Amino acid sequence: MPVNLSTPVAAQLLPVAGVSLGTAEAGIKRADRKDLLVIKCDEGATVVGVFTTNRFCAAPVTVAKEHLAAGKGIRALVVNTGNANAGTGEQGMNAARTTCAELAKLLGCTPQQVLPYSTGVIMEPLPVDKIVAGLPQAIANLKADNWFDAAHAIMTTDIVAKAVTRQVQIGGKTVTVTGMSKGSGMIHPNMATMLGYIATDAAIAQPLLQQMVSEAANRSFNCISVDGDTSTNDAMMLIATGRSGATIDAANRAMMQAVVTEVATLLAQAIVRDGEGATKFITIRVESGKDEAECRKIGYAIAHSPLVKTAFFASDPNLGRILAAIGYAGIADLDVGKLKVYLDDVLVAEYGGRAASYQEEDGQRVMKQSDISIRVVLNRGAANATLWTCDFSYDYVKINASYRS
Amino acid sequence: MPVNLSTPVAAQLLPVAGVSLGTAEAGIKRADRKDLLVIKCDEGATVVGVFTTNRFCAAPVTVAKEHLAAGKGIRALVVNTGNANAGTGEQGMNAARTTCAELAKLLGCTPQQVLPYSTGVIMEPLPVDKIVAGLPQAIANLKADNWFDAAHAIMTTDIVAKAVTRQVQIGGKTVTVTGMSKGSGMIHPNMATMLGYIATDAAIAQPLLQQMVSEAANRSFNCISVDGDTSTNDAMMLIATGRSGATIDAANRAMMQAVVTEVATLLAQAIVRDGEGATKFITIRVESGKDEAECRKIGYAIAHSPLVKTAFFASDPNLGRILAAIGYAGIADLDVGKLKVYLDDVLVAEYGGRAASYQEEDGQRVMKQSDISIRVVLNRGAANATLWTCDFSYDYVKINASYRS
Repeated sequence: MPVNLSTPVAAQLLPVAGVSLGTAEAGIKRADRKDLLVIKCDEGATVVGVFTTNRFCAAPVTVAKEHLAAGKGIRALVVNTGNANAGTGEQGMNAARTTCAELAKLLGCTPQQVLPYSTGVIMEPLPVDKIVAGLPQAIANLKADNWFDAAHAIMTTDIVAKAVTRQVQIGGKTVTVTGMSKGSGMIHPNMATMLGYIATDAAIAQPLLQQMVSEAANRSFNCISVDGDTSTNDAMMLIATGRSGATIDAANRAMMQAVVTEVATLLAQAIVRDGEGATKFITIRVESGKDEAECRKIGYAIAHSPLVKTAFFASDPNLGRILAAIGYAGIADLDVGKLKVYLDDVLVAEYGGRAASYQEEDGQRVMKQSDISIRVVLNRGAANATLWTCDFSYDYVKINASYRS
Repeated sequence: MPVNLSTPVAAQLLPVAGVSLGTAEAGIKRADRKDLLVIKCDEGATVVGVFTTNRFCAAPVTVAKEHLAAGKGIRALVVNTGNANAGTGEQGMNAARTTCAELAKLLGCTPQQVLPYSTGVIMEPLPVDKIVAGLPQAIANLKADNWFDAAHAIMTTDIVAKAVTRQVQIGGKTVTVTGMSKGSGMIHPNMATMLGYIATDAAIAQPLLQQMVSEAANRSFNCISVDGDTSTNDAMMLIATGRSGATIDAANRAMMQAVVTEVATLLAQAIVRDGEGATKFITIRVESGKDEAECRKIGYAIAHSPLVKTAFFASDPNLGRILAAIGYAGIADLDVGKLKVYLDDVLVAEYGGRAASYQEEDGQRVMKQSDISIRVVLNRGAANATLWTCDFSYDYVKINASYRS
């Protein structure tokens, strides 16, 4: 069950003027479920994104990057679940291009103005005919007030849909930011098996918007880990329609960045809370390191350790496993005698061993919570990093041992 | 159950002249089990080792390195299970030193001539009194023909004991190499939660012996992975007594290295075969890379992927997960269109996707085996690397969620 996460309330997901969404049941992998989404942007919208760094990136990732680079103005995004169109070679590239071309025909734009996304099983041919056949249905129900349905249409092994809205006043105008995400396993830095779509009605020029999406991704989707695997298909997209009348510039940029990052963070955390088999949500904060890179390195060593993750599943304050992970993070000159480790507010380790004040029942109390924080204070500099991960349960194995069947 | 691995036959474990072994039931963590081992070396033996690179290395590792560096000639090694004496600060250092001092008294040597080893739960105080009280019992049953009992005394979560003997003719003399290891989880390159002790009756000078242990570790214990965690306590030791009359020099070094590496490899593979919850033994060979480092990087990306490991557990030829792991291994200029992937003899992927000749039933047949090989042919150089790992099952979670209790 997702950890302190429930289905969003449809009425709280506010439309973003200039963006409409339509879903369809295309029968890509299974019948009777929404598996196709079209996001239509009105003319003049600006669309940017960041993508997986996996060398085996999927065909739709390659095509989306090409189409963004062409700079013709994006008019639509199309997302299918049930098949990732990854590891599919030339045939996969053709399938992604066909999807764009067919949607462009229906919308009266060019194929280069369409971006494709796929998620699901890899190395199976994309049933492009089913997608093409489903497009008219998706277009027929395009509407602005459709984020709730859209968030459901992009789910794969997700248990709950993930979407959120935030508003901010900028220059006397109400700016809306609504976003949705999908993903529950294979989550890692660099945009792993997850899709995120965030739209705002602020007006933001392309170079600034690109900086904003990178900054937001770096503080959100690139700070989460479920199992350390990085997917072939991930993307986080940011759409700015300008319809609110508010224009973002150097003066108000920070306000806008804050709300975009907040939405992205909530969407990213939701992926961890819905992590495959997760029973605990764990915040790892590494403080006072020499630089952010070493803080992240230590944080990820903890986040990726199956031994740490199974100890959290067992609510076992097995602090030694956390110390061991810190020790093998690869920081050559780390003085383990100087660092402190906390579980929530409980000091558990200092001077290279268990804290003298530590009592097992205090550790036990924290470990039984569903939301837990680990704080590592390195005492060697001024840099920090915060990451989020989940525990590792029987159900993770169960889900991933049976995903294809 | 261990994968194609059974308890060694006691009669096939040959003594090494100049080395005797004695075990005791010291009651360190539980009563009625052997948990203490003394390995005594006759005067003149040469002892070398390689140790964990974890920055949180355990107290006994620090003390063992100090005593080796002192160069006084090692006369005994002492190993306890049930407690790792790691993350125990100054108190832990004192406990390791006391263990050495007490054993030295009993054997009539100096504390610096004794090397301590501990394995078990971390961050708990070592019950040094129990160890000291157990030493006379271990010394009382010291004998050369005791490798079978010794291999049992060093087990923790191991299901079967791990030990092997090989012999080789060098300069008309029969040289014996007998070794034992322990470990079943937290296994990773750089000597993770595992102990290995190999002895030979060849005469090998210290500098050459040190090269030999490094070379053997690099081809064996540093090529295995169970869960990617690196322990605080690991060590692989090599003892040369010279009692066979064969002396190793530049001319016959390769023969000796081959047999030491073979013994080390069998002991390391045994750890993977006995991996926590393992049901499959997987050999990963990465060929024709630019250098060995990139071959290892790709091999470990595959070996550490929980998604790949759960697919093996499910006997599911989910090739996409292997390709995804290759893709995120961090080789920036990797051309995925040029590489080929095989499951045993079955070509499964080429040209960036599934091989045209691939049939699901061929992949399925291989995946059902208990010993499986993955071969990745990069087609970009002349370097190779071979690694060994196991799958990831429900039982891994079960074992590690309950290890302390």
